[in-house]
Amino acid sequence: MRVFGIDCGTEVTGFGVVESCDQPRGPQLKFQAMGAIRLAKSKPLPVRLEQVFNELTAALERWQPDTVAIEEVFYSVNAKSALKLGQVRGVALLAAARLQIPLAEYAPLKIKSSVVGYGLAKKEQVQFMVARLLELAELPQPADAADALAIAICHIHTAQTLEQQGATR
Amino acid sequence: MRVFGIDCGTEVTGFGVVESCDQPRGPQLKFQAMGAIRLAKSKPLPVRLEQVFNELTAALERWQPDTVAIEEVFYSVNAKSALKLGQVRGVALLAAARLQIPLAEYAPLKIKSSVVGYGLAKKEQVQFMVARLLELAELPQPADAADALAIAICHIHTAQTLEQQGATR
Repeated sequence: MRVFGIDCGTEVTGFGVVESCDQPRGPQLKFQAMGAIRLAKSKPLPVRLEQVFNELTAALERWQPDTVAIEEVFYSVNAKSALKLGQVRGVALLAAARLQIPLAEYAPLKIKSSVVGYGLAKKEQVQFMVARLLELAELPQPADAADALAIAICHIHTAQTLEQQGATR
Repeated sequence: MRVFGIDCGTEVTGFGVVESCDQPRGPQLKFQAMGAIRLAKSKPLPVRLEQVFNELTAALERWQPDTVAIEEVFYSVNAKSALKLGQVRGVALLAAARLQIPLAEYAPLKIKSSVVGYGLAKKEQVQFMVARLLELAELPQPADAADALAIAICHIHTAQTLEQQGATR
């Protein structure tokens, strides 16, 4: 299973690709790729949205994931920020839909507890655990890419748990 | 000048096409088209966003407007609604950007005062004045399409005012 995590942001949108491989000692996570789409503040909004759409579409076409995993939105932000974030998120969801890739959404608390074991973990803890789980030599940078990898890992962990539950029934 | 107005909404997104034609007695507004994209609540969000994108793209390709006019967002809505609206708005802006059509944004107060002469006008007053300005036999329906026509008219009025100011300098 190959999962493409997306961490939407109004300035930087991170993405990360993780595979799960069956190994004799159980399923293993395997890092595939990560990246960050940085938006120039000086450019008009439609141009920035087109950049996110084009770069995500190119990465999705290259990696051909089985699933796109994305964060459910955190509603405590104010309405102005929520609207800006929504514009980027809409374009990201469209990129997945146009390539007919199924979508999975996870709450921020669920993502952190799935990766760090603690829902209120800090960004640095997420980066550290992502590096450990994926056996990366260095902390994944920027934090937005690390978050995207965490979302992908969360989806794989969730799918494995569901599979095990099915197997033991 | 042909203007394509878009009124984004999470359930219905309206659009309207208006032209301004030079006439001996001054520039005249001319109704071209209007429509509403209704999103099925039962469908997943990415599918709904793709529908908005595809239908808007088809209408923009058909009408080849000089400008897309859209409402600036009204920030007093709550964060949850703002996020949902943002997702639709992002996809609408992307449709215009991909076809390289310039974008103009207007505040709701400005749109209403430009069409009705009163910034706090009600929906029915906007529908009535849009029908009158465009010489429509009936009130434009649904209200979302009427709002989109109002946004297009606002852009034409604004452009005419700027032109006159330039001419009298």
